[in-house]
Amino acid sequence: MTYKRIDSADNKKIKRVAALKKRKYREETGLFTAEGVRLAEAAANSDFAIEQAFLTAERAADARVVALTEKLAARGGCEMFIVPRRLYEKMSDTASPQGIMLVMRQKKYALPFEKEGKDAPFYVALENVADPGNVGTTIRTADALGASGVLLLGSCADLYSDKTVRAAMGSLFNIPAVADLSIKEAFDFFAKNKIKTYAAALDEKAAPLFAADMTKPVAVIFGNEANGVTKEVLNQAEKIYIPMTGGAQSLNVASAATIVSYEVARQRYHGAKTA
Amino acid sequence: MTYKRIDSADNKKIKRVAALKKRKYREETGLFTAEGVRLAEAAANSDFAIEQAFLTAERAADARVVALTEKLAARGGCEMFIVPRRLYEKMSDTASPQGIMLVMRQKKYALPFEKEGKDAPFYVALENVADPGNVGTTIRTADALGASGVLLLGSCADLYSDKTVRAAMGSLFNIPAVADLSIKEAFDFFAKNKIKTYAAALDEKAAPLFAADMTKPVAVIFGNEANGVTKEVLNQAEKIYIPMTGGAQSLNVASAATIVSYEVARQRYHGAKTA
Repeated sequence: MTYKRIDSADNKKIKRVAALKKRKYREETGLFTAEGVRLAEAAANSDFAIEQAFLTAERAADARVVALTEKLAARGGCEMFIVPRRLYEKMSDTASPQGIMLVMRQKKYALPFEKEGKDAPFYVALENVADPGNVGTTIRTADALGASGVLLLGSCADLYSDKTVRAAMGSLFNIPAVADLSIKEAFDFFAKNKIKTYAAALDEKAAPLFAADMTKPVAVIFGNEANGVTKEVLNQAEKIYIPMTGGAQSLNVASAATIVSYEVARQRYHGAKTA
Repeated sequence: MTYKRIDSADNKKIKRVAALKKRKYREETGLFTAEGVRLAEAAANSDFAIEQAFLTAERAADARVVALTEKLAARGGCEMFIVPRRLYEKMSDTASPQGIMLVMRQKKYALPFEKEGKDAPFYVALENVADPGNVGTTIRTADALGASGVLLLGSCADLYSDKTVRAAMGSLFNIPAVADLSIKEAFDFFAKNKIKTYAAALDEKAAPLFAADMTKPVAVIFGNEANGVTKEVLNQAEKIYIPMTGGAQSLNVASAATIVSYEVARQRYHGAKTA
């Protein structure tokens, strides 16, 4: 493997990686960072562009990482750097630095997607979801359970923040995720494609999840952590709720999206349409 | 309301709150902190002991908080303090300090619990789950979906860390959670109480979740984020898996626990035993 060596924290490339922690700079450059061996492997197997890889010498010697960097070299277009451990630790914002970090190019999906699966479309939509962990976890689950894509409406956490990327665990490279959609854009898409639209609501007048037929083309919208979905969404979608039998009054938004994604997969692939 | 005023960061009570960020000090004292109006309201409605409340003057003037502090005063045993905003911000470890923080006494549940619900027991067990957000989210979901209790096996994240308490969103005050159980203690309890025990496994020989009858007394064990459940658990439990139809190879552990808790509730309370 051909590595260049960087020793100084004043190096321009190192400063750029640090600047990529800021959303504004990520948006200006269209870049983001992905840290850790698993994420880097998922990235190498994806069609996302990888511009740079920064490794500690220790990590670069690891057999699994040797295979990975060979794959990155074979892909082409990826500069590779060895950096001292103390410098790497400054670049990483995690408690346990992983010794490998990629600088990657963001992918801007737009509606409609180029590819659709063979199954009826199923979209998970988040509206004003503020926590990057919730956005990332929702993407991971939607991917695992076979959703067509994830749509971010209004002001959600950045799809490409460190925390989102980490929580999505490589699923960001598998499943299309469209950011910065307006409510109108989303509903125009749903209407045009005959996609039945539900909004998750804590509302006694809402229908229980079990009663909804999820085998048809559907989208389900989940709202902000504190305030739920906006009135504008509620007015245009059918309300559903997840029946809760216990003490807690609500679910975490990523947990709610997980349950709905599971129910869709259960109805579609595992018999029993509705209870 | 009778408040005392603290102005100095050197005050012993303030220093104690800061020290409660450390697990060791929480364990020595049996105390923990809970921040924010919603959490404080859930605490006030619970049977957990609340020793102190720290508020900013601004927050204390809020009508909702006035009602809350009146409830705390009526409970008795809770000292109340007004602290300057800059001091409060130092006490809080969150990005947006909430202006109200409680010092509370931990509750040590042991098996068996004193109270059982009217339904067949359902335990969610986590083994070596390291992330406090995952532990807290699992507790919140288990509570919402009617589980009997949450069991922490091996070395899990601290039940009473700031992050666990925050992610559990008050459910820590609703549902019994037993920490520091050995595998033997847990399996002895399951055997004695005829509780069928499943382990979530990424294993093709495992039975799909749909095929398991969750209407009987059951416990489901979920493993560490990176390594899953230990062999010792796998050898003593029946393996189940959540069928995944998409690209991701695994689910976040709290998402997996959420799906299983939902499936249990679905089978028990909403018809359709198995698909």
